[in-house]
Amino acid sequence: MDFVLTGSWSQKSLKEAEKYGQAHVAASSQNDGFTHLPSPKTWQIGSHTRYVHICGNETIHGVEFHELPDLKALGCDAPLVVDFSSHVASRSVDWSRVGLAFGGAQKNLGPAGLTLVIVREDLIGHALAHCPSAFNYQLVADNQSMYNTPPTYSIYIAGLVFQWLKQNGGIAAMEARNIAKAQLLYDFLDSSSLYVNKVAKDCRSRMNIPFYLRDESRNEAFLAGAKAANLLQLKGHKSVGGMRASLYNAMPLEGVQALVAYLRDFEKTQA
Amino acid sequence: MDFVLTGSWSQKSLKEAEKYGQAHVAASSQNDGFTHLPSPKTWQIGSHTRYVHICGNETIHGVEFHELPDLKALGCDAPLVVDFSSHVASRSVDWSRVGLAFGGAQKNLGPAGLTLVIVREDLIGHALAHCPSAFNYQLVADNQSMYNTPPTYSIYIAGLVFQWLKQNGGIAAMEARNIAKAQLLYDFLDSSSLYVNKVAKDCRSRMNIPFYLRDESRNEAFLAGAKAANLLQLKGHKSVGGMRASLYNAMPLEGVQALVAYLRDFEKTQA
Repeated sequence: MDFVLTGSWSQKSLKEAEKYGQAHVAASSQNDGFTHLPSPKTWQIGSHTRYVHICGNETIHGVEFHELPDLKALGCDAPLVVDFSSHVASRSVDWSRVGLAFGGAQKNLGPAGLTLVIVREDLIGHALAHCPSAFNYQLVADNQSMYNTPPTYSIYIAGLVFQWLKQNGGIAAMEARNIAKAQLLYDFLDSSSLYVNKVAKDCRSRMNIPFYLRDESRNEAFLAGAKAANLLQLKGHKSVGGMRASLYNAMPLEGVQALVAYLRDFEKTQA
Repeated sequence: MDFVLTGSWSQKSLKEAEKYGQAHVAASSQNDGFTHLPSPKTWQIGSHTRYVHICGNETIHGVEFHELPDLKALGCDAPLVVDFSSHVASRSVDWSRVGLAFGGAQKNLGPAGLTLVIVREDLIGHALAHCPSAFNYQLVADNQSMYNTPPTYSIYIAGLVFQWLKQNGGIAAMEARNIAKAQLLYDFLDSSSLYVNKVAKDCRSRMNIPFYLRDESRNEAFLAGAKAANLLQLKGHKSVGGMRASLYNAMPLEGVQALVAYLRDFEKTQA
């Protein structure tokens, strides 16, 4: 199995996969602090690999694949496996490039505890002997996703979210909205002399935007002011520090506008 | 590993366990249609068994352990493993006899999708190499049950249920109520010439009471009349047929009284 390491979540998937077979790092951007995506052309994919795994969006490092790799064009016939937990339903997906996509619902689809997998039919039926039944996609498919007791309430809520998505123009409209939201924040950060986002522009996440105050001694004051302005959950993940704005589907453009207004005001007070 | 087969759920656990080691049937009541519990004195427990597994309450067959087996008294030092999904929080438990208890929350604790395990500390830390991290109790414990993203909403609802339990007298009061509910229904069934429950009296479930009409040609009429009286979900599991009344904690005594009134009225119309 080949893994492309682009942040904390792909690292976790690699670690988990190591229990089940030979997991190989095809590429990693760890050396630069996960601030870019290794170009697929540079990936070292094993000639007998069974799959290539990526995390489509890294929530902690703020890195996102804006185009899924075309493994066939790289001369690889193995399926692409995508952890799409944190940007599912936020953008269109070229499913012709995907063998299997899996994720938790908790970012864009519904309550935590609901998970989902989309898997190409020819990839079903090859579970390891010690695969728990609930994770054996053949069994799950044969039982219409009800082999084990399904999380009914969470599925009901996800159904309401799907209805909301459709009523609001579907994935295409959601993607346009997410582009506008992210653009607004990145443009401001790039124009600022106080804040900085370190991620390469071609792979900046639309969902999770980490940024730093160039003067980190101001972090506490920044967060206190944000809280006073009702702008919450802006503290970055403890493993990377700094700040992070998460702009999942549920965040309206007005929320980002309010954040940018606060960022601007706070910067002025630091002049 | 030793398994005591007392119905569908212990059979399922056996089947799942067979993937992970040598699973042995210590006792089974399959020959009599799972209508009694094999006496612990008759269990054939391997001298080197790693654990003995029981299902505390079988929802489909309506069989329940009213006393947990005392493995030590049987000369067995291995831990007792209990699937307590369907009667957790309905009765007191002699925890000194339990090594590990596991279950889903969906019967007496909260929404489907939440699961829980109670495990003796000395049994933690022996996970198989290919155990998924989310099921490695050492990892789960080290991370205060938040190694993976917890199902927050379901936990919140379970918290409300625990408060409700406390406000209503706790497990002791719940058990007294459940005894009264079950007694009311069993007494009526046993006094009736139309209905029959086939389970031995010393192991009848308080949670799930299966019963049959002696004249099964009346099943459809029975269910139609029940539905008209707002008595729902009375059709037995497809694997055993007949009828089943589930009297989980949330079912008030008044619900059982209404059912018995209907049973009595329906019987009269059949005279």
